[in-house]
Amino acid sequence: MSDEIILHEYADSGNCYKIRLTLAHLGTAYVRRQYDILKGETRTPEFLATVNANGRIPVLQVGDRFLPESNAAMWYLAEGSALMPSDRWERADMLRWMFFEQYNHEPNVATLRFWTAFVGEANWTELQHRLAPVKKEAGDAALRLMDEHLDGRRFFVGDRLTIADIALYAYTHVAPDGGFDLKAYPNVMAWCEAVQLEPRHVEIGD
Amino acid sequence: MSDEIILHEYADSGNCYKIRLTLAHLGTAYVRRQYDILKGETRTPEFLATVNANGRIPVLQVGDRFLPESNAAMWYLAEGSALMPSDRWERADMLRWMFFEQYNHEPNVATLRFWTAFVGEANWTELQHRLAPVKKEAGDAALRLMDEHLDGRRFFVGDRLTIADIALYAYTHVAPDGGFDLKAYPNVMAWCEAVQLEPRHVEIGD
Repeated sequence: MSDEIILHEYADSGNCYKIRLTLAHLGTAYVRRQYDILKGETRTPEFLATVNANGRIPVLQVGDRFLPESNAAMWYLAEGSALMPSDRWERADMLRWMFFEQYNHEPNVATLRFWTAFVGEANWTELQHRLAPVKKEAGDAALRLMDEHLDGRRFFVGDRLTIADIALYAYTHVAPDGGFDLKAYPNVMAWCEAVQLEPRHVEIGD
Repeated sequence: MSDEIILHEYADSGNCYKIRLTLAHLGTAYVRRQYDILKGETRTPEFLATVNANGRIPVLQVGDRFLPESNAAMWYLAEGSALMPSDRWERADMLRWMFFEQYNHEPNVATLRFWTAFVGEANWTELQHRLAPVKKEAGDAALRLMDEHLDGRRFFVGDRLTIADIALYAYTHVAPDGGFDLKAYPNVMAWCEAVQLEPRHVEIGD
């Protein structure tokens, strides 16, 4: 079993869910290993030494090798599959949306969800109170950009589901947990439904 | 000339420099089009409508198609070249460092450089004063992680220069402009020298 796939994860994390949803679409078998990020289980000396020196999940383990960064893990799994376009431009365009997701979307939409639904506003520091409206505005800008791009399109790149959709769907469909109103973005809502209607779809937290 | 390559850029931006350094290594001809980001030239209605709705540079134009996100543009240019490993795991590992760059490194190391060397501390808002030490600490954590990974290695992935090195080099070698002391990271300094010694290397701002 030298190429056994193990996902080091936290079930409610959107970044971890990206990889589970990718694995579900590919029909790939894997083992799940849970860490409670609220209890610091990804910051222990053992985790830092063996799984990820950056102290973060998800980490995809294949045999005895470890791959941090959710979008890199999705790429590894999806290469050569129907979840990745065969056209060179479309592959790069997919990466364009995946880098947008990590730079413009996740630090705002996912962070506000984490602060609101997991940390709880009552426990925020003064700096978190200061940053919350900044992240709300930046998150709405990201959702607006997505909504404009999706005008007349079913998926982000080409005409079928790719890992760019999975990357963006993970935290978009739970954005209301962070105070975002998806009704303001009708194309985003229609796209969320299209993602959910794909065969083999699985839910976050499952 | 339907596949003419045009780089929409600002010469002092590390994200733009990534693409120029990639093009230099590949020996690919291209046209440069400059925008003064300090004067808002990437936020004009025309720029938003034709080049990038996200109002950012760099954007790689190939014929009449536009590709935002520096790391996606590097990927497009480098696919199939010596700047990208042929091994599937190493390609994903390269992406791992490129996503790390955009999530952990650029928002701290590059942002502090921009605030310090371009905006000027005298012009900072109160929130920028609050965030500067937070970004300094996170930027140092990113540099420390790089330094540990580079212990015993010449480059980030495999044994030769890839676009993961170019992505991380762009803002690392000018990190002192943002107040970071690279002497604390000897492996990072040795790697910077190795990148600079590669044939066809070009400097930022050239």
